[in-house]
Amino acid sequence: MRSFGASPSPCYTPPMSTPSPIFIGVDVGGTNIRAASFTRNSHLPQKKVKHPTKAADGAEAIIKRIENAIRDVAPPGLDGVVAIGIGTPGPLDPYQGIVFSAPNLKGWENLPLKKIMEKRLEKPVFIGNDANLAALGEWKFGGGRGHDDVLYITISTGVGGGVISQGRMLLGANGLAAEVGHVTVDPAGPMCGCGQRGHLEAIASGTAISRAARARLEAGEAPDSKIRDLVQGDLTKVSTTIIGEAAQADDPFAHQLLTEAGKVVGQALASFLHLYNPSVIVVGGGVAFVGELLFTPMREAMRQHAMNEVYWRYCPIVPAELGDDCGLIGAAALAMEEAKT
Amino acid sequence: MRSFGASPSPCYTPPMSTPSPIFIGVDVGGTNIRAASFTRNSHLPQKKVKHPTKAADGAEAIIKRIENAIRDVAPPGLDGVVAIGIGTPGPLDPYQGIVFSAPNLKGWENLPLKKIMEKRLEKPVFIGNDANLAALGEWKFGGGRGHDDVLYITISTGVGGGVISQGRMLLGANGLAAEVGHVTVDPAGPMCGCGQRGHLEAIASGTAISRAARARLEAGEAPDSKIRDLVQGDLTKVSTTIIGEAAQADDPFAHQLLTEAGKVVGQALASFLHLYNPSVIVVGGGVAFVGELLFTPMREAMRQHAMNEVYWRYCPIVPAELGDDCGLIGAAALAMEEAKT
Repeated sequence: MRSFGASPSPCYTPPMSTPSPIFIGVDVGGTNIRAASFTRNSHLPQKKVKHPTKAADGAEAIIKRIENAIRDVAPPGLDGVVAIGIGTPGPLDPYQGIVFSAPNLKGWENLPLKKIMEKRLEKPVFIGNDANLAALGEWKFGGGRGHDDVLYITISTGVGGGVISQGRMLLGANGLAAEVGHVTVDPAGPMCGCGQRGHLEAIASGTAISRAARARLEAGEAPDSKIRDLVQGDLTKVSTTIIGEAAQADDPFAHQLLTEAGKVVGQALASFLHLYNPSVIVVGGGVAFVGELLFTPMREAMRQHAMNEVYWRYCPIVPAELGDDCGLIGAAALAMEEAKT
Repeated sequence: MRSFGASPSPCYTPPMSTPSPIFIGVDVGGTNIRAASFTRNSHLPQKKVKHPTKAADGAEAIIKRIENAIRDVAPPGLDGVVAIGIGTPGPLDPYQGIVFSAPNLKGWENLPLKKIMEKRLEKPVFIGNDANLAALGEWKFGGGRGHDDVLYITISTGVGGGVISQGRMLLGANGLAAEVGHVTVDPAGPMCGCGQRGHLEAIASGTAISRAARARLEAGEAPDSKIRDLVQGDLTKVSTTIIGEAAQADDPFAHQLLTEAGKVVGQALASFLHLYNPSVIVVGGGVAFVGELLFTPMREAMRQHAMNEVYWRYCPIVPAELGDDCGLIGAAALAMEEAKT
């Protein structure tokens, strides 16, 4: 904070050289490290870079690449940088800034990332998990803007999400809250990647939908499905993109697969309405791109399972708006939010 | 706020007559209206009254009785009263202070209770639903004290609860969040009182446990169960108290009923761990009184269904401590909390 002394002139003007405040967002993935600089309250990056993570090189090498990416998008000497937000996959402690583990990043175990980066950069650094930060980004700049209570759910290879409650990210005691993919929706359902049975992710993730489709096609169901043509008989190639394509072409089996998945997501959304009472639900992730073929059964099931229409009448379901940049923008939004307090 | 003027004497002492701040909690039930006065940060009532609600008399009569109960426990002229908290059953808007409906209170529909009471009492009034306020009471003064992230669940005729998240009550957009009894735990399960299938309340509430026990006994299961003796053959008298008694006396069927219920609650608790990440779970309500016979299978199922032990390792399950007064104390706690801000 600069001080203008005891008797500022009433017509004092800051010198032209005062840099405008800059916030940096970093998205650390198993394949790429992406960084971008932003001015306050904007989600349009001023400068943006993407470097390969080379995850096998180990913790120190990855940390150095993060530092380089940040310096690449910042002014020289990080001049004017107010705060930096970093999103990483996997469980972490956002309060202490410690990454417990990051499945695809070698050597990232109990890594005090905040402390390390603050020492190197001499700027405030905040960290968050990628799904939570995507929720934050969608809240500040995407489908959830203007709302104080947002449920963000992303359906892609897994099912993740984040919750904004009364204008604050819902973190829980250890920063592990809002794991919306890991609620039990059917105790007799298939096994989840986390080792538990019948979680939402085990039934409605892209991986789960494709796996179920493949198994049913292999068992001989839907011999005339267009999915078979689209993969030219190679059922290992069945994906939600293929299923979406077939459904767009009015394939009844593909329709059925998306309807079944949409119903399960809708049932879970009804539980989330009762538990979080959001005023908007933002849906992101690759699977969401199939659009109304998934959204219609999802919306219907949500309404049907809700205990009272007051829960959904004022709570629209909207698509995520930030696309692939949501993690990057979310990380910058974290820096902006934290720098306020 | 009083001002001491420009030059307070350094040894100024407030006059002896300054009243100490008083907070009033009111618990409005279908049978009784209870009110009590408290000093700040204490849950030991200074004065306490209980009046019959006479719910059939209609809105105005009940409101008058609430006012009388408040005046009964307050000093004359409400001198020193800082704020008043009122808990009522059923859905309400805690932000606007409007009761949408109260199942057992005649004429309570879209009632602007906060505004009405503030006009009559000329003091700040805050309202909350009884389960949320019980959670608030247990957080400030009971089993959840010292924690910032509390899940309170009450298992009695229904299943309700409340959530404290990062030191604040989780209300959601319309004050309807934390309806923990209304998550789908088994889509093929029995119908819930709310009209939806397979909710936690439909399987694990006292009503649901007793109903299932009765049906199975009527169908001839467990011909030697001690439950039959305890109700002297009148199966309409089967209750969770009776089931608890039989279980204490080592009745295998009663054990089985509590184990099954405990498992379902535990499965739901695992979902709540993933969704709210609390640092303590407080369990209240009549059914919880059966103790370890329910808690042991519940705790085991919760651990078994959690995706990672980090969720439960530092999150004890503890019994509620405030008993029948939890709603009353919670209402006073609401007054204390709101008066701070």
